[in-house]
Amino acid sequence: MAEMKAVLLRICPEALIVDISHEVNKYDVRTAAFVLASASRYFPNGTVHVVVVDPGVGTKRKAILVRKGSSYFIGADNGVLALAVHNTEGDLCIREIANRRFMLTSPSSTFHGRDVFAPAVAHLLNGTPLEEFGPEISEMVRLEFSAVTKRRGKVLGEVIHVDGFGNIITNISKQELESVRKGDSVIIRLGKKNLQTRFCNTYGDVDKGKTLALIGSHDFLEIDRNQESAAQSFKTRVGEKVVVYLSPSGYR
Amino acid sequence: MAEMKAVLLRICPEALIVDISHEVNKYDVRTAAFVLASASRYFPNGTVHVVVVDPGVGTKRKAILVRKGSSYFIGADNGVLALAVHNTEGDLCIREIANRRFMLTSPSSTFHGRDVFAPAVAHLLNGTPLEEFGPEISEMVRLEFSAVTKRRGKVLGEVIHVDGFGNIITNISKQELESVRKGDSVIIRLGKKNLQTRFCNTYGDVDKGKTLALIGSHDFLEIDRNQESAAQSFKTRVGEKVVVYLSPSGYR
Amino acid sequence: MAEMKAVLLRICPEALIVDISHEVNKYDVRTAAFVLASASRYFPNGTVHVVVVDPGVGTKRKAILVRKGSSYFIGADNGVLALAVHNTEGDLCIREIANRRFMLTSPSSTFHGRDVFAPAVAHLLNGTPLEEFGPEISEMVRLEFSAVTKRRGKVLGEVIHVDGFGNIITNISKQELESVRKGDSVIIRLGKKNLQTRFCNTYGDVDKGKTLALIGSHDFLEIDRNQESAAQSFKTRVGEKVVVYLSPSGYR
Repeated sequence: MAEMKAVLLRICPEALIVDISHEVNKYDVRTAAFVLASASRYFPNGTVHVVVVDPGVGTKRKAILVRKGSSYFIGADNGVLALAVHNTEGDLCIREIANRRFMLTSPSSTFHGRDVFAPAVAHLLNGTPLEEFGPEISEMVRLEFSAVTKRRGKVLGEVIHVDGFGNIITNISKQELESVRKGDSVIIRLGKKNLQTRFCNTYGDVDKGKTLALIGSHDFLEIDRNQESAAQSFKTRVGEKVVVYLSPSGYR
Repeated sequence: MAEMKAVLLRICPEALIVDISHEVNKYDVRTAAFVLASASRYFPNGTVHVVVVDPGVGTKRKAILVRKGSSYFIGADNGVLALAVHNTEGDLCIREIANRRFMLTSPSSTFHGRDVFAPAVAHLLNGTPLEEFGPEISEMVRLEFSAVTKRRGKVLGEVIHVDGFGNIITNISKQELESVRKGDSVIIRLGKKNLQTRFCNTYGDVDKGKTLALIGSHDFLEIDRNQESAAQSFKTRVGEKVVVYLSPSGYR
Repeated sequence: MAEMKAVLLRICPEALIVDISHEVNKYDVRTAAFVLASASRYFPNGTVHVVVVDPGVGTKRKAILVRKGSSYFIGADNGVLALAVHNTEGDLCIREIANRRFMLTSPSSTFHGRDVFAPAVAHLLNGTPLEEFGPEISEMVRLEFSAVTKRRGKVLGEVIHVDGFGNIITNISKQELESVRKGDSVIIRLGKKNLQTRFCNTYGDVDKGKTLALIGSHDFLEIDRNQESAAQSFKTRVGEKVVVYLSPSGYR
């Protein structure tokens, strides 16, 4: 990571570098995609985002440079950029990073973050036009998340992220739960467990160690515990199914 | 954390951001207070310090902005800023951050670091006068540390921090131990254990794995082990009582 | 660490600080030396590198400032700078940091990173000439790595680093293995285990969980597993012996 920053600063000494996260598990493309999508929308226009979660480094997977509106994304074409690109507004342009002129000399097969992505970030910041990096491509690899479905008083989704506090973040958005009021008691099926809990405004609305549901700071339904790890208590993993029963008639 | 930096840079692109620590345990207000107080005094005049250890986020606890002398402190009014503010010299001004104009639109109830504190830092750096953030308040929440007492050849205090090396840092300051000379053998009661050890200049004054006492780099008494974790060896926790026997007559 | 940055910025507000790593184990001079040497060669000319792995802080070990070519290195004279200095080209000048004028007032005996090294970095960046820091010294402490030897169809070396992915990095360089072709099956003795594996271009050349050998991004032989930790599987530690059998006749 330091080597990436070194390469970047060598080519573009004025670059301002901000670390997003070094806590995504190795090879975990989905979590990296979620973390990037959560953070990228707060960065200033013109920001270049680069991600190195790249289990296929050196194989046939492409290195890509994506412009969406006024934001840029660089990384492996393995889906890791997909969610952030999808959530950003504007025109889309995807290019393969293929021009060796914008890589380190003799790039390694095992560390494209340093040898391919970091130089591309720096050259882009230096004003190199997109079309010089390589050919335009029409599609990038997407991530498959199961769609949220709503039927007969239920909303069905899945766990998409567990954050550093052990909060369980689902893909069910604020909009799907419009009919639920704060303070309502709700029944949520999390994997094979049924939880009867309260729909809250914040963690401190329940006693320490108690379970709650809320719309988190990324506008998704979360199942949390006040000052404890909900994921640990419920042994929850990313991908687990989640069902919210919107009305007593929905649940039996 | 990245989202805080993004928000900050969006509002104040010239900000220079320095990370103090991401290793304080979740919800641990006392350790965060100690870490901030240790670090803040080394930063240049005019620095704005922001802390996000905020178990009560979204409840009635206030968000505050404190100026003490030429330093600024922003965070939850839960005591986390108290020690650093106390240790900084100069006039004191405490204001609640209440003006929505200096927050993100529709702030969440669960991430004030991003939605309230970071924008306040940025607007302050941009020159917004203190009085625009919200009403002045007369007192902030303090942290209760047991006072150090000295009587009949003993100094009584407590463990206030265990650092990343496992060094046990107490609230007994250099001044309380003026009568002790380097090289002296001392008896220290740590929780329920009595340690006979030597008052040293540095870790390497004893063999690897041996216990020592010294005045640490923050001018407090520490109980350490050379190249090992004293806290692990003695199973020490923050809050444990510490007694230093200054003279043989003090100890029986 | 934050205190070091604070001190540095107080003396030299224009400094651009890049973190190399905070993941080297406490007191592990050899790993720190490897990590520094790997990273330092990618930084721009004129970079000042500072390392705080310093188990002997406050003892008689010296604090040194080294210029090699156009790069600078500051730290304890315990070998931690040796590998990076050795790998950098140019004239060598080593000076003890002895002049109290370039340290914090009343430096502690236990945190020279903050009180001695960081101020030295800042004063150096501010243009203080090398000779003002202290007397020139003719030799710095070196690290002992066993030399790589080559005989009768074998190359003998040792494990010098295990990275964050569990990749096992040896001190056997690309040059020693010129006769091996990608795709070749090789026999490698790692400690007491014999591995028959394939010499690959990248991790993804074998199935997930399979072992492979390759020349890593630092031009050394690595023994890895695709998307798993080779070091954990083989319970490998730094210092273990490694033998590569270049030809069937070399192995019996």
